[in-house]
Formats: sequence, C-alpha cells, structure tokens
Amino acid sequence: MSTAARAIKELTAAGRSVAVAESLTGGLVSAALTSVPGASAVVRGGVVSYATDTKHTVLGVDDFLLRAGGPVQAEVARQMAHGVRRVLGADLGIATTGAAGPDPQGSAPVGRVFIAVAWESGDDVRILSLTGSRDEIRSATVEAALNLLMDAARGTA
Amino acid sequence: MSTAARAIKELTAAGRSVAVAESLTGGLVSAALTSVPGASAVVRGGVVSYATDTKHTVLGVDDFLLRAGGPVQAEVARQMAHGVRRVLGADLGIATTGAAGPDPQGSAPVGRVFIAVAWESGDDVRILSLTGSRDEIRSATVEAALNLLMDAARGTA
Repeated sequence: MSTAARAIKELTAAGRSVAVAESLTGGLVSAALTSVPGASAVVRGGVVSYATDTKHTVLGVDDFLLRAGGPVQAEVARQMAHGVRRVLGADLGIATTGAAGPDPQGSAPVGRVFIAVAWESGDDVRILSLTGSRDEIRSATVEAALNLLMDAARGTA
Repeated sequence: MSTAARAIKELTAAGRSVAVAESLTGGLVSAALTSVPGASAVVRGGVVSYATDTKHTVLGVDDFLLRAGGPVQAEVARQMAHGVRRVLGADLGIATTGAAGPDPQGSAPVGRVFIAVAWESGDDVRILSLTGSRDEIRSATVEAALNLLMDAARGTA
C-alpha cells in the first residue's frame, strides 16, 4: 500500500479531513492523496502557492515575514498549514516550502525544506536537508509530508 | 520534451502567467507544470478544489449551479478557470472537472471530463469522453489540459 493510501486510511479511521498547501512540491502531495479511490471522503483540497506573494494573498501568511525572510522558513510553513486549513475548512492542514533547485531560493540552499502540519489548537514543523535532483527533492518531500500527516491523524505529531 | 515543458516554453515566449484549478486531476496539472525548471517565471500557482463546496467558497463558482447540476459540467469548468485566474492573479486560468471513477459523479458517467481555459476577455471549454482506469483518466486529462493551455498561450484556443 502506498504512503498516500495509508494516509487516507488513517484519516478516514480518525474521521479527520485534510487540506494541502504546497510550494516546492507544486501539487504532488494533493495529487498523491487524490490518487487513492475514496479520497474524497477526507480530502477537502489544496492550494499551490507557488509565487511567493500568493502565500500571503491566498493563505494569509504574514507579508512582512515573507519580505524579510523569504518563502523558505519554518514559520512560513507553519502559517501555510494553518492558512490552508482555514481557507478550505479542514481539520488538518499540511504544508511544504523549500528549495528544490536548480537554484537556491534566497538564502535557502538547494535541499532545504520545511514541512508543517496544523490542527485547530496546534502544529508541528519539521526541517529537512535533502540531496539529489529537483525531482528527487520533490519526491522525498512528498513522502515526508505524508508521514507527518499520518502522525497528526493518529495524534502523535 | 514533455508536454509540460513545451507549455512552460510557450507561456514564457508569450510572456503570460497561468493559474490552475483542479478537481479530478487533484494537483497533477500543477505538479506537471512545476516539475519544469524555470516554471516559477510563469506559474502563479493553483487551487485543488476537490470537495464540491470549495469550488464555490474558494473559486467563486455559482453555488446554485453546483447544487442544481453537480460539479461535472462545462459551465463549472469555465467558472473554475476564471475564478482561479482572479484568485491567483494570472493571465490565464486552466481548469479540470470530471468523473475519474471508480464511481460516477452524480449524473456524470466515469470518463466524462470538462477542461476549460480562460483569459481576461474569453474562454474555451472542451468535453472529453475518456476510458480506462482512474489513473489513466487522470493522466489523459492532464495531457489534454496542457495542450489546451498551449493553444491559449499561442492565442489559438
């Protein structure tokens, strides 16, 4: 069973819905979750906030934070996860931001990735330092995000 | 060169940005476009409006239309494409809605898909009748959407 299928199973068992906010993964986390038949019972949807300003305009990430420190920061991931929960009306929000390459993203080197999961009363943010090609960094981020989502669905994030 | 890479090339040549609204493809169109290095110059982002109500709440699709006719209609695709252009501030909006299976989506049989592209002063909607597995229907929809996007970037949609 794929990681996405296990995540859908955990969410369904917990009776919790999810929304996804993606930057470097660009839709891959949402695509993985919705590849599973029956996903519609727990997947509300997602926002691909690829251009930096859309993290503020669509997801409500603090504008000053983005201007001062750029899009690849732990606090940006955390606010993206809370924002997408709110915008799509989900129990859990999961978010990815990072530098997939080929170029660094501001001060963030290629492979620096932040993932976050948020629920009504809390959140958990993790920092990854990945190596490999753009595709490999994106794929590893998807796996890590789905695993973090499962932890949150189980209440162990 | 992949269809997504050709689409990014056409958009870049035309100097036009794009935003993506996805239902059955669940993030695959956004993921394909953002897999291309340099996509950030023209891809604003996207919305995966998977749950039907999010097509209204996030993208502004007419609520009565959704309640009366369900999410799989040409007019829903058209309004999703215009909505995502507006929400993400893009020159072009591309949208997918349809029944990927395994079950029909309301009155829409498995394989019935609508794709739309919108620009400031117009739009183009196409109807597909696809066969195959859930994965095959989703993949064929992605290809068709990217081709429609290229037509619009060239001004031939």
